[in-house]
Amino acid sequence: MTSSERVAVLGTGLIGTSIAMAALRSGDEVRAFDVRPDVLEVAAARAPGLVAATTLEACVDAATLVFVCAPVPAIAHLAVDALRGAPHAVVTDVGSVKAHVMVEVERRVGVERAAGVDLAARFVGGHPMGGSERSGPEAASPAVLDGAVWALTPSSTAAADTVATLRAWIRGVGANPVEMAPERHDRLVAFVSHLPQVASTALMGLAATEEAGEPDILLLAAGGFRDLTRLAASSPHLWSDILLANGGAVADAIDLYVERLSSLRRMILDADASGVERSFEEAKRARLSLSPKPQVRTGVAVLQVPIPDRPGALADLTAALGGARVNIEDLQIVHSPEGGRGTVHLTVGATSAATAMKALADAGFEPIRLA
Amino acid sequence: MTSSERVAVLGTGLIGTSIAMAALRSGDEVRAFDVRPDVLEVAAARAPGLVAATTLEACVDAATLVFVCAPVPAIAHLAVDALRGAPHAVVTDVGSVKAHVMVEVERRVGVERAAGVDLAARFVGGHPMGGSERSGPEAASPAVLDGAVWALTPSSTAAADTVATLRAWIRGVGANPVEMAPERHDRLVAFVSHLPQVASTALMGLAATEEAGEPDILLLAAGGFRDLTRLAASSPHLWSDILLANGGAVADAIDLYVERLSSLRRMILDADASGVERSFEEAKRARLSLSPKPQVRTGVAVLQVPIPDRPGALADLTAALGGARVNIEDLQIVHSPEGGRGTVHLTVGATSAATAMKALADAGFEPIRLA
Repeated sequence: MTSSERVAVLGTGLIGTSIAMAALRSGDEVRAFDVRPDVLEVAAARAPGLVAATTLEACVDAATLVFVCAPVPAIAHLAVDALRGAPHAVVTDVGSVKAHVMVEVERRVGVERAAGVDLAARFVGGHPMGGSERSGPEAASPAVLDGAVWALTPSSTAAADTVATLRAWIRGVGANPVEMAPERHDRLVAFVSHLPQVASTALMGLAATEEAGEPDILLLAAGGFRDLTRLAASSPHLWSDILLANGGAVADAIDLYVERLSSLRRMILDADASGVERSFEEAKRARLSLSPKPQVRTGVAVLQVPIPDRPGALADLTAALGGARVNIEDLQIVHSPEGGRGTVHLTVGATSAATAMKALADAGFEPIRLA
Repeated sequence: MTSSERVAVLGTGLIGTSIAMAALRSGDEVRAFDVRPDVLEVAAARAPGLVAATTLEACVDAATLVFVCAPVPAIAHLAVDALRGAPHAVVTDVGSVKAHVMVEVERRVGVERAAGVDLAARFVGGHPMGGSERSGPEAASPAVLDGAVWALTPSSTAAADTVATLRAWIRGVGANPVEMAPERHDRLVAFVSHLPQVASTALMGLAATEEAGEPDILLLAAGGFRDLTRLAASSPHLWSDILLANGGAVADAIDLYVERLSSLRRMILDADASGVERSFEEAKRARLSLSPKPQVRTGVAVLQVPIPDRPGALADLTAALGGARVNIEDLQIVHSPEGGRGTVHLTVGATSAATAMKALADAGFEPIRLA
């Protein structure tokens, strides 16, 4: 089934261009606009079939579905321009915070509302939970959206068919729409996205400061430290926008995190071994229940494969899959920070899982399907 | 050069058995003892040539070098038994905290000291920074120690030749000895090892508690959250011992971490965008300066290789390396949480780096040597 929407994309960074590519793959017409012509040009090259518009108005003109893919502070302004310029389109965005965006859109549609037209009824806030630490159209791919959870936060006055149109389109490109109130979205991502970013940045900043007096400190840093500080390499400007726009929820999450750290600190200084162990047990249990699903995605399978310690063992594994025409979506060597021995977690398409299991077994491996 | 020591290993878990295997590889005689006969049996099967002793005394009897590889609370007791049972041996341990161990050993050698014999002069605290989140002899490998930083904390009365013997042995098995005072070691690992563990456990515990009221919260958790909570799956019992034994330094590190979190929280609530951005810039700079060296190890090279998005691309890469007899020590797909496209970071032996670069280039890849 092709959706046959006329899609307009405002902002052709990583997510905007990925959406354009997914739309083209589904058979939609796609126009795009970016305030930076050079960025738009790269996007057009990356997404053959995409029509580059020279103005926002020309881009949204005849659209049925508009995606605002701009940084958080610019979203509301562009969304309202799109609602005005495309009088029949459903307009959505992809910002990492939602309450702020919804309030700003509401605030800007007062003129039309006074005249009896509720522009906001065609606006549905959105947040696809894909993406990566990369940015820019060069890194775009429809795979960014494959199986991704896509949060939707309709305005209180949103028309039911507006939401239904967007849900159907999202399912059509292979993602997973989940509806929730904007405030709830922001509270949840404060815990699982914004707080981890703050925690990572604070840890890296602290170690860097300590390093000034103790140059050996990073010599002793092993894999765990690297895991915890990977996010600290993310874009400062992007994150400043996101954290400030979700300030209240982020501050609440930091407060609860600090409480938990302080409680562990107290137990450690009180030599309360059973208290410390209990906290660690709870966290371990929760983390292990998270483990079998390396991505919260539909449509993929995760296989665990032990790998012997000899040159070429990994080559045999990947050759077996390549020979069976199985595309490896992700491969992680786990349990082996220090050597070639270890276990591999493979992510493959769910429809390829059985083929992959057989090909690996035929090649002498002992794969286990985790998810 | 073989070192030809008579090595005794007390405790045959992951590190103890790995040390035994590395010693056997170097041509040493190796005896081992564990309070759990079943664990010792697995270790003996994993390390052919290892002589399983039935008592601690029989194990250390004729030893020239004793490794105490027991949990932190048991180390001092076993170390002093070894110093008494092996009157000419250098005795060392592998515990994650050092001041506590050094003090406890000192405290227990009073009888001999009153008689004019300084047992502690033959004791050198140690901490190889290898290992993994795994445990037990099944997971042991000499590769755990390859290129690992191995901290040494000699007692204040340690004889110079004692330390020299141990340093030479550590170099002989391919690790990298670094001498420092016990208190300094404990302060540094509090920041780069113990605090990350506490930060990860606290974050996972908090999300799990929130999940009770908000079952969707983990649905929105993406790769960053997984990175930050991976350590939370570590052993609660082991970590309770370590944190309590290094309580003061860990509490200080938590205090500084909480200060930094609170400062970010304040800037976020004050809408101080430039302050938030400055903190993020500093952390990003520090993290990127860490990035080119995924392991702080001598003896390895890290190559970055872009991978096209087609079935078999990864197989071609690993086949090219297998064909050139290059052993892949580690392989990480970076920049690609959502699809097969991406960049691979390969860790190979430093002596294989040139061979690997050529084999990859010949196969049409464009590798870059990062470290």
